[in-house]
Amino acid sequence: ARPRVGYFFTGKTGSELLTEKLKKFKVGDFQSIPIVVDENVSVYDAIVNMFLEDVGTIFVTNENAKLTGILSRKDLLRASIGNQDLTSVPVHIIMTRMPNIAYCSAEDLLLDTAQTLIERQIDGVPVVEEKEDGLEVVGRLTKTNVAKALVELGRDEHL
Amino acid sequence: ARPRVGYFFTGKTGSELLTEKLKKFKVGDFQSIPIVVDENVSVYDAIVNMFLEDVGTIFVTNENAKLTGILSRKDLLRASIGNQDLTSVPVHIIMTRMPNIAYCSAEDLLLDTAQTLIERQIDGVPVVEEKEDGLEVVGRLTKTNVAKALVELGRDEHL
Repeated sequence: ARPRVGYFFTGKTGSELLTEKLKKFKVGDFQSIPIVVDENVSVYDAIVNMFLEDVGTIFVTNENAKLTGILSRKDLLRASIGNQDLTSVPVHIIMTRMPNIAYCSAEDLLLDTAQTLIERQIDGVPVVEEKEDGLEVVGRLTKTNVAKALVELGRDEHL
Repeated sequence: ARPRVGYFFTGKTGSELLTEKLKKFKVGDFQSIPIVVDENVSVYDAIVNMFLEDVGTIFVTNENAKLTGILSRKDLLRASIGNQDLTSVPVHIIMTRMPNIAYCSAEDLLLDTAQTLIERQIDGVPVVEEKEDGLEVVGRLTKTNVAKALVELGRDEHL
């Protein structure tokens, strides 16, 4: 006969419990530092910046330091094979610009932002705070951050 | 008084059970189709190919269709800002070449390969099969695949 022990049956299986924890992961717990350039910087300088900082996505801001655009490696690669002098073209000419930008806040769920990265086929989004004169960039959430979350889950961290 | 019910206590918590499932995820269950070019293709054609296929990593093979190198967006961007005619430089000049290439097999654990992507700061690795004359590329495992695994976990798929 099976031993009868005094544990509650919660109606939840093991996988449900872990999924609940995963579902509570916030962007703010996994985000990285954002790399930002002014919209008048040249495409060439933005590319150099991307290599120096070793990031795949750079955010572009206006004179009030508010988000106006995004530059991915793909955007910069496209520009670099065009027949133009990269040192004289400002990034605002080639960037993906507001309002066509996906972004998130530090309080957003990591799973929702991961879903956005997948659906929009982008490597990263800015983590922003809304201000009176626009969006302030406070972080960067990339596929690398999402991969790290999975690896940490596998190691029982955050659990 | 607490109700006494006849469930076994396995000694495992919910998070342990889910972690065990996550730890069994295989590369083969999440990999994508690989995009491959010959090592004599020009850098320009490789870039065009990257845009046409919309991938971030292209694999380079020799005349026996065995892996000899990898081209990332970063490699191609670096080459494109150099002062060279991209249509006349073959990819084998600029690619990351064997044996300095990280790769995996379809039977490898997704978590281990995710860890490799993070540690080596790369976007993707080839999924290969070992043959007598080298490595045959059978798939591609990228940070996007890893992000999808996390989102599926959150949705209770694969569980």
